[in-house]
Amino acid sequence: MSGRIVHGGGIGAAAALYGGHPGDWLDLSTGLNPCPPALPAIPDRIWHRLPEQDLLSETRHAARTFYGSGDILPLAVPGTQSVIQLLPRLADRGRRAAILSPTYGEYGRVLTSSGLAVDAVATLDDVDPRSGQVVVVNPNNPTGRLQAPGNLLSLADRLAGQGGFLVVDEAFGDCTPETSLAGAVATRPNLIVFRSFGKFFGLAGLRLGFVIAADDILERFADWLGPWAVSGPALSVATDLLSAEPQPLRRIISERRAGLGRVLADAGLNVEGGTSLFALVADPCAAELHAHLCRAHILTRKFDYAPTWLRFGLAPDAASDERLAAALATWSAR
Amino acid sequence: MSGRIVHGGGIGAAAALYGGHPGDWLDLSTGLNPCPPALPAIPDRIWHRLPEQDLLSETRHAARTFYGSGDILPLAVPGTQSVIQLLPRLADRGRRAAILSPTYGEYGRVLTSSGLAVDAVATLDDVDPRSGQVVVVNPNNPTGRLQAPGNLLSLADRLAGQGGFLVVDEAFGDCTPETSLAGAVATRPNLIVFRSFGKFFGLAGLRLGFVIAADDILERFADWLGPWAVSGPALSVATDLLSAEPQPLRRIISERRAGLGRVLADAGLNVEGGTSLFALVADPCAAELHAHLCRAHILTRKFDYAPTWLRFGLAPDAASDERLAAALATWSAR
Repeated sequence: MSGRIVHGGGIGAAAALYGGHPGDWLDLSTGLNPCPPALPAIPDRIWHRLPEQDLLSETRHAARTFYGSGDILPLAVPGTQSVIQLLPRLADRGRRAAILSPTYGEYGRVLTSSGLAVDAVATLDDVDPRSGQVVVVNPNNPTGRLQAPGNLLSLADRLAGQGGFLVVDEAFGDCTPETSLAGAVATRPNLIVFRSFGKFFGLAGLRLGFVIAADDILERFADWLGPWAVSGPALSVATDLLSAEPQPLRRIISERRAGLGRVLADAGLNVEGGTSLFALVADPCAAELHAHLCRAHILTRKFDYAPTWLRFGLAPDAASDERLAAALATWSAR
Repeated sequence: MSGRIVHGGGIGAAAALYGGHPGDWLDLSTGLNPCPPALPAIPDRIWHRLPEQDLLSETRHAARTFYGSGDILPLAVPGTQSVIQLLPRLADRGRRAAILSPTYGEYGRVLTSSGLAVDAVATLDDVDPRSGQVVVVNPNNPTGRLQAPGNLLSLADRLAGQGGFLVVDEAFGDCTPETSLAGAVATRPNLIVFRSFGKFFGLAGLRLGFVIAADDILERFADWLGPWAVSGPALSVATDLLSAEPQPLRRIISERRAGLGRVLADAGLNVEGGTSLFALVADPCAAELHAHLCRAHILTRKFDYAPTWLRFGLAPDAASDERLAAALATWSAR
């Protein structure tokens, strides 16, 4: 596999390098809710049988209400990554793609390795309206930069005039539903919204995401993925959790985010951006800080392409905030 | 989605048509072990975190021992269907594919709809050795026809001379490991073996399968599927169950299969074939028999392309065998 990207979550590798039992590490390298809700009961038949249409349909209806996609029934997919992999097949081979950059690296890796010509653009205004496919992660990972919905819709309309698609990845948008374009897809056949289930709900192991797009696009994705693409347990758990009131989860995420923000501010670090699920620190010594925290068995996320950045995910509780604060205190005092 | 195939497992649809609560139906429409082992405990972190490399590696090592693939570490995939979907990408576009037929319909649907020219061949001798890709389900679904390993290896060697692949789907091979080619892949770079986890273990909801093939082929599949393609719970459960002794499962499947065989024989039905996980009945009135059993809320599997066939999966216990026997008694007495 060419150009494989090192993502967060590599606690095993970090522990092999810096010592300690992986279970004792504090993993701040991902952008996951560290306080997932209790796992709903999963009926035996969900494990034993193939996931049937009625189960799938229940999940899609729950997702429609949760994401506010109106007439569109979101398509359940085995993680957003599974449809990122398919974007090259949606692309018009003769046209360039554009990615609002820097952002989540898998878009660039997948589109480029498929042979497409890809422009990394810094602003929406820099997008060539003749692009066949434009990707915007909103809010962005890892910068947290947020594009106003109106500006994205204008871009979608400009692209539509020339037959191009706009893909908006809202993986980190569950705490800010007012920024979502999910409700706008029904009237814009060239707009595709990706939603991630595992981040907000802290259940990344399930492998579940949703695509909100016009029926013909959803049918193409469904056709490429084939039947039974999503596991029964993922559908069952998601139906339950998407049907529950999201405010308690938003509240605890907000509390955890505030705790992280305080620790980073107290340490005098420069928080340059972030979302509800992570903070991005800019520091000329980011690589050394990463290593310093590893020695305290705390894993953060560094970026090959931006050596001054360090991304901090949320810690699960106040005690873990203090553990991070203690490790940062010895850094500040070095 | 064009040419969608109606598979077994549609209890919801059958109950809507024939009445009864879906949970009260006896589902004999699939080829799944109806007596799955107890679900192993799944640690919380498996649900919460992305499936990491070390988890994946443990599953692959357990699969290597279970399937006997020697130097090859099987690739975990989210169900065999996920790699059937990718077969067209492995194919040389300019060459024909061949499928030993009739067989599991998804091969024909996927290869044909990708635009490949596909020959449905009746015997291995009918395969054009210039084929780019040949698919054999062994033992076959739904006929149960078994190809001798030596004949398949000869075919693989004939194809290798002209750069063609042989795909052998051993989804129903877990009770007859002596027929498997898993151990032959290490010395045959054009041989690809698919294994299904959910059938033998009765855990189809998990969505898990394995590909046994040369490293360069596994890397291509892994690249197309992308990172984190298989859910954490699937990997965790599989690692535990693949590491356990398979004989108790084989024994109970064998008992259940014997029970089904007795019921069908007592009813005077003509069992034309089958595997350890299902029996294939040939009857000029198969469609009427299917409807008759539906009225008793028992679902079997009929085949559009073979209207005289009816496939019976295993019932979970002797009481269910008797329920089937009672329904068949009123059929014989009609």
